[in-house]
Amino acid sequence: MASGIVSRFKPLFDRVLIQKAEKVTTTKGGIMLPEKAIGKVLEGVVIAVGPGARSNSGDFIAPQLKVGDKVLLPEYGGTKVELEEKEYHIFREADLLAKLE
Amino acid sequence: MASGIVSRFKPLFDRVLIQKAEKVTTTKGGIMLPEKAIGKVLEGVVIAVGPGARSNSGDFIAPQLKVGDKVLLPEYGGTKVELEEKEYHIFREADLLAKLE
Amino acid sequence: MASGIVSRFKPLFDRVLIQKAEKVTTTKGGIMLPEKAIGKVLEGVVIAVGPGARSNSGDFIAPQLKVGDKVLLPEYGGTKVELEEKEYHIFREADLLAKLE
Amino acid sequence: MASGIVSRFKPLFDRVLIQKAEKVTTTKGGIMLPEKAIGKVLEGVVIAVGPGARSNSGDFIAPQLKVGDKVLLPEYGGTKVELEEKEYHIFREADLLAKLE
Amino acid sequence: MASGIVSRFKPLFDRVLIQKAEKVTTTKGGIMLPEKAIGKVLEGVVIAVGPGARSNSGDFIAPQLKVGDKVLLPEYGGTKVELEEKEYHIFREADLLAKLE
Amino acid sequence: MASGIVSRFKPLFDRVLIQKAEKVTTTKGGIMLPEKAIGKVLEGVVIAVGPGARSNSGDFIAPQLKVGDKVLLPEYGGTKVELEEKEYHIFREADLLAKLE
Amino acid sequence: MASGIVSRFKPLFDRVLIQKAEKVTTTKGGIMLPEKAIGKVLEGVVIAVGPGARSNSGDFIAPQLKVGDKVLLPEYGGTKVELEEKEYHIFREADLLAKLE
Repeated sequence: MASGIVSRFKPLFDRVLIQKAEKVTTTKGGIMLPEKAIGKVLEGVVIAVGPGARSNSGDFIAPQLKVGDKVLLPEYGGTKVELEEKEYHIFREADLLAKLE
Repeated sequence: MASGIVSRFKPLFDRVLIQKAEKVTTTKGGIMLPEKAIGKVLEGVVIAVGPGARSNSGDFIAPQLKVGDKVLLPEYGGTKVELEEKEYHIFREADLLAKLE
Repeated sequence: MASGIVSRFKPLFDRVLIQKAEKVTTTKGGIMLPEKAIGKVLEGVVIAVGPGARSNSGDFIAPQLKVGDKVLLPEYGGTKVELEEKEYHIFREADLLAKLE
Repeated sequence: MASGIVSRFKPLFDRVLIQKAEKVTTTKGGIMLPEKAIGKVLEGVVIAVGPGARSNSGDFIAPQLKVGDKVLLPEYGGTKVELEEKEYHIFREADLLAKLE
Repeated sequence: MASGIVSRFKPLFDRVLIQKAEKVTTTKGGIMLPEKAIGKVLEGVVIAVGPGARSNSGDFIAPQLKVGDKVLLPEYGGTKVELEEKEYHIFREADLLAKLE
Repeated sequence: MASGIVSRFKPLFDRVLIQKAEKVTTTKGGIMLPEKAIGKVLEGVVIAVGPGARSNSGDFIAPQLKVGDKVLLPEYGGTKVELEEKEYHIFREADLLAKLE
Repeated sequence: MASGIVSRFKPLFDRVLIQKAEKVTTTKGGIMLPEKAIGKVLEGVVIAVGPGARSNSGDFIAPQLKVGDKVLLPEYGGTKVELEEKEYHIFREADLLAKLE
């Protein structure tokens, strides 16, 4: 029940498995606060990527994202999954907003 | 009325027949509990796979899943079927979330 | 008014004419009960098959089913037709769940 | 104002002009009753056929039906037209259920 | 402000400009009545035709109708236009029901 | 802040920039009245045209309209824009009804 | 936490990152007022552009806009993002109204 289940997790079609970021921010007074959102948009890391959506002719369309990419997530949407007591989210690639290079 | 009906069950188009998993979990106190869900997502096993959806030109698009694959299911959706007193669910492949390799 | 009308019945496009099964089940006490449903899904027999749906280019897409196939039907849907005092249902092939080989 | 208007009636695209059947049935007691429905489905005759729907490339897709074909109609739908004091209905070919050969 | 504006009226895409017919009917008593509808369907004349809808590849799809054609109109729909104090209607060709040859 | 902003205005995709007409009409009594509508339809002039919509393959589909064309506008729709204290409207070309040649 | 995050921001698909303009206007009395809207439409600058939408065959469709373009935005829509304490908006390119050259 170690980190196996995450590495064995293969999203179908154009889905990606995302772990939302918990950023730590230092306030002016020096206190550290966990900060999840950049504005209304959440940051996350791509943990697993599916083979891509299907074109009209049935071929897979290669995804733009790869494992390890940092992404901005929309405020709503995605499916919550709990794997080994950590929370992840499954999104379709086209619903993610941007990649942070 | 043995296991014949399940082996004879051929889903149409991109449908798959799924048997939901009943996992057994040991709690800290050592008690075994059946556990069905990983977070909000259910695990299952692929029992039968259809020939695939149709492309625009009418060809079958080969499915990604095969019999025996372990999959994560969405919380809602699918059609319940009772075959030989066991409960199964029929899903379209694109509605399944991920494969566990 | 004999069995002519059923044999003359040619569904259009991807429609199929289905006769729902009335299965007889023996209970533990030995009593025979007509049983229509396998779980929530109904069984039926394909009586007639249309030429298939149209692809984007206007060709017919050959259906997967043929006359005599046993199929599982969704709980809802289809159009009831009474032919020679028997009840039939018309479904689109893509709305049927599975074939029983 | 003779039967000219019906023969001059050319449906557009995949529309067909249908005259619903009024069948006469003999009851057990020998009384003749006009009977319009076969179960919930109405029978009709194709009076005129359009050139067909358009494929994605703009070509007409040849219709499956021809003038004189007997068809089964859905319970609802179609547009009522009165031509020379008789009632007709215009349907799209794909909304008709079956042809009776 | 003569009949110029109508002749200069060029519908865009698959639109057609229609003038609804006002038919005159003689009743049994010999009285002439303007009659607009054939059953629930209205008759009209095509006054102007656009270049046609666009196919998927961007080409115009040649319309089926030409100026002067008599057509049957659906009971609802179309956009009323008043040109030189006469009332016209703009329809998409696919919404018209039939041509009267 | 001269007429620069209008000439620099380049609509995206199949959008067109329209200036609604204010027509002057002489009543029977000789009084001039501004008149905006021809029936329920408004007249306008094309001020700027985008490169066109995209076909399925990603190419631009050349628009039918060009700068200076007189068009009929639907009663509702479009986006109001105020440029240099004049009011304009942005429409998609396919929502315009007709061109007046 | 400098201007890095904006330059590292890569929108996915046909999304663009927009910074809304704060224009300064001189009133007749000579007072400067920040003015955000041209009529009901907002002006903005393109900060980052995605690789484009996908055609049916899965290729990217090159976007019309590039970094630095001035654009007119619709009154509603887009997703607000706060990056380095400044507010940005993410739009799909097809939802933007026009480019100001």
